[in-house]
Amino acid sequence: MTGSKSTSELYAGYQSKMQKIADVRNAMAVLGWDQETYLPEKGAAFRGQQLTTLSTIAHELFTEKELGDLLHQLKGATDLNAVQQKNITLSLEDYEKNKKYPIAFVAEMSQTTNECYHAWIKARKANDYQIFAPLLSRMIELKKQETDILGYEGHPYNALLNEYEKGATTTMLDTIFADVKTALSPLLAEIEKQPAINRDFLFKHYSRDTQWQLGLDLLREMGYDMKAGRQDISEHPFTTSFNPQDVRVTTRIDENDFSNMTWSCIHEGGHALYEQGLPPEQYGLPCGEATSLGIHESQSRLWENNVGRSLIFWEHNYARLQKLFPENLGTVSLSDFYKAINHVQPSLIRTEADELTYHFHIMIRYEIEKGLMDGSINAKNLRDAWNDYYQQYLHVTVPDDLRGVLQDIHWSHGSFGYFPTYSLGSFYAAQLFTAAQKQTPDLNTSIASGNYHPLLDWLRNNVHPFGRFYTSNELCKKVTGNELQFRYFMEYAETKYRL
Amino acid sequence: MTGSKSTSELYAGYQSKMQKIADVRNAMAVLGWDQETYLPEKGAAFRGQQLTTLSTIAHELFTEKELGDLLHQLKGATDLNAVQQKNITLSLEDYEKNKKYPIAFVAEMSQTTNECYHAWIKARKANDYQIFAPLLSRMIELKKQETDILGYEGHPYNALLNEYEKGATTTMLDTIFADVKTALSPLLAEIEKQPAINRDFLFKHYSRDTQWQLGLDLLREMGYDMKAGRQDISEHPFTTSFNPQDVRVTTRIDENDFSNMTWSCIHEGGHALYEQGLPPEQYGLPCGEATSLGIHESQSRLWENNVGRSLIFWEHNYARLQKLFPENLGTVSLSDFYKAINHVQPSLIRTEADELTYHFHIMIRYEIEKGLMDGSINAKNLRDAWNDYYQQYLHVTVPDDLRGVLQDIHWSHGSFGYFPTYSLGSFYAAQLFTAAQKQTPDLNTSIASGNYHPLLDWLRNNVHPFGRFYTSNELCKKVTGNELQFRYFMEYAETKYRL
Repeated sequence: MTGSKSTSELYAGYQSKMQKIADVRNAMAVLGWDQETYLPEKGAAFRGQQLTTLSTIAHELFTEKELGDLLHQLKGATDLNAVQQKNITLSLEDYEKNKKYPIAFVAEMSQTTNECYHAWIKARKANDYQIFAPLLSRMIELKKQETDILGYEGHPYNALLNEYEKGATTTMLDTIFADVKTALSPLLAEIEKQPAINRDFLFKHYSRDTQWQLGLDLLREMGYDMKAGRQDISEHPFTTSFNPQDVRVTTRIDENDFSNMTWSCIHEGGHALYEQGLPPEQYGLPCGEATSLGIHESQSRLWENNVGRSLIFWEHNYARLQKLFPENLGTVSLSDFYKAINHVQPSLIRTEADELTYHFHIMIRYEIEKGLMDGSINAKNLRDAWNDYYQQYLHVTVPDDLRGVLQDIHWSHGSFGYFPTYSLGSFYAAQLFTAAQKQTPDLNTSIASGNYHPLLDWLRNNVHPFGRFYTSNELCKKVTGNELQFRYFMEYAETKYRL
Repeated sequence: MTGSKSTSELYAGYQSKMQKIADVRNAMAVLGWDQETYLPEKGAAFRGQQLTTLSTIAHELFTEKELGDLLHQLKGATDLNAVQQKNITLSLEDYEKNKKYPIAFVAEMSQTTNECYHAWIKARKANDYQIFAPLLSRMIELKKQETDILGYEGHPYNALLNEYEKGATTTMLDTIFADVKTALSPLLAEIEKQPAINRDFLFKHYSRDTQWQLGLDLLREMGYDMKAGRQDISEHPFTTSFNPQDVRVTTRIDENDFSNMTWSCIHEGGHALYEQGLPPEQYGLPCGEATSLGIHESQSRLWENNVGRSLIFWEHNYARLQKLFPENLGTVSLSDFYKAINHVQPSLIRTEADELTYHFHIMIRYEIEKGLMDGSINAKNLRDAWNDYYQQYLHVTVPDDLRGVLQDIHWSHGSFGYFPTYSLGSFYAAQLFTAAQKQTPDLNTSIASGNYHPLLDWLRNNVHPFGRFYTSNELCKKVTGNELQFRYFMEYAETKYRL
């Protein structure tokens, strides 16, 4: 008993408040989904205002003194089970962190984010980083302030990394990216010497309707529950969840590029399976939320690359593909198809990169963000740093800002510390998939026969149901026996790419 | 100056609070739209909870003491313009009315509505009114209590009528429905003697895609702004607005019934044109809201019936229709088509009734609701009353409850006083359309040539821009020179149907 109310009464009160906040945030997610799929052109202005209002309400609800009081009363209560205790601990952490932000800072950040985003749009139109630089400079100053507000040990960048991947630090990432450099670079050099690959057939005409149907079929076969989700078209594919019973994916279809829809569909399917696998009874509570961005991305990458670009996957699926697109693929062998969809080639644009060179794109952004936070890089010399890094690591010359420093939306949104989670996702994926293969008899055989249930079952038992109960590294250790190690990814890459 | 803040500062504060409430309500509308169009099956439970949360928040915001204080401070301020003064007056009315409801009453109403709705669903499945009767009885008791809470002059039913159509009373409606009886009954009797009409061709196979495209074309031609709206499919057609720049319609398509899509599309288009014509700068304020349900319905009925079932409309459009559906309509003359789409025949189901007998369906519901409120009818003898009225006024025998007293959702939702606005809508439509014809040179000629701009311009100038600045009757008098009179509808009916 705490005060006059029992712990279970207090916990029910806490849960009800958190669910109310979740309802508001999920309503925002519905409005956001609609904005990207069906919103008529002129509806954007009022929609922006409506989203701002809901965001303010959610913020107000989450900073209510009553909620704080409840959390403090429940903290350390011994008659809560482990999940309940973890929920209280994490909610209290979130609550206290939220309270650290001075109102003036939040207002300035909101204002700057808005201006910075529009400057980025304008700079992209003019293909000129200089238009973006002054606003980005202000944004960087604010992010530095934010590291002080949040507090950190070691490098100030740690404060921001921690926001997206709890516990991630520059120490951890320096080690991992050092491994990337020493291990991945030689493999890339070797791949460059391999014979040229023909990919022309991927860019023939692939009918929209057939692609759409194929995407839906792949999602269903992966185990995506169509009664608890749906697929629509948007400019940029994404996954969004309103609750575990309503998790939606979007895709885009390019009739002249088969790769576009196919692997984005499998990728978003991986995200969606994770969200559909979160425990509905933990709705609104930390243990009902995804572990971290890195773990989320591990789910999409595992399906997209470890499964969806594997030979065993296409051993089963390629015949069907040939039947769907006989004119394009009828005379292309499985082996040639497999090589084409795993083509490795250094390039300028992160989102178009293959699964190996991709991590150099991330490493460059990581190094730059770290430099921005410790002052060794600033908005003025950022473009030069960018271009130099691309020359150094990917041996490509950046021809203009659009294909260089202006390509990503993240910084204009103030998302610093986000990029590394993409690489972490791939590395977690490799380590988790290795564990799944070890722990599941005949996993490869079942995948090769088009049966993904054993894989999904393994994920549903080992990864999906815990929410934030574990941090990403705790989860990784629990499931695989080790903390995150780059070698699993490297083994995967060596096996796949070294001839 | 009022206190330390200027009137304009206070007004800005009021406006901001009202817009915030509107944002929440419009977010609910988006979630509601999604629920009827795209929601996956399993998403319904959490969606219900999310809507309840938003509804609670909107209610809390609208009952905030601060808002009340602002309204009282602004009441009677002389340095506001007429629209601003009207907004304050109406918001204060709404606010005070809201405050009249005891919390216990609101909770009981919410609970009963939920149970009553589910009892209605259950009763429909069993085709048995007795399953519905006990819950309906409780609902009726609550609605009686509500008339006392709201207060009224004359008949208690006036309190409920006023909720949907400000100023409407039993005195007004008794007069109008007496006119319906004395004037419309003889016309119906005469129509019954006219030669039988062939309508078979309306029920041939009409392809889904062609119907869908026709619906979109009709909406565009009416002047519906597709950049500020869109059409989707739902089980029951409806119009919903998230703001004047995002007004959406839905339709349904029956491949074996051409009428279904066509006139529901024009009907919803009329609603949508009204919402798109409301002043965006009054967003969230009473003068940015529809005048009343009756005026809203007048806009849908005007387009659906006065325009969309007129000979001049089809003089222009019928050739196109024949081209779209040559197999069904190629050999059907315009005159036969026109007769078929204006077929009059007493029937059992309100939503399927023609534009004349429809008003007897409404009159019956009006008489019953009035009787329920003054106690002359109750849940026990309601079914008998219903069946007797249908025999008396429409000369049809009700074969079962599904085709009788269980057909409408309204009572299960606690919507008493709503039905009469449907008839008022048709009668306002006739009176407004007569005025539009008088005041617009060559209106009929332009409609006959497929040009609806002059009509829409007239509506945009005379009906759409005022919101709740006028009541429906004030608006009617301003625009047509007279309060609502049944004779305009009767003249329209006589001209159209008397051979």
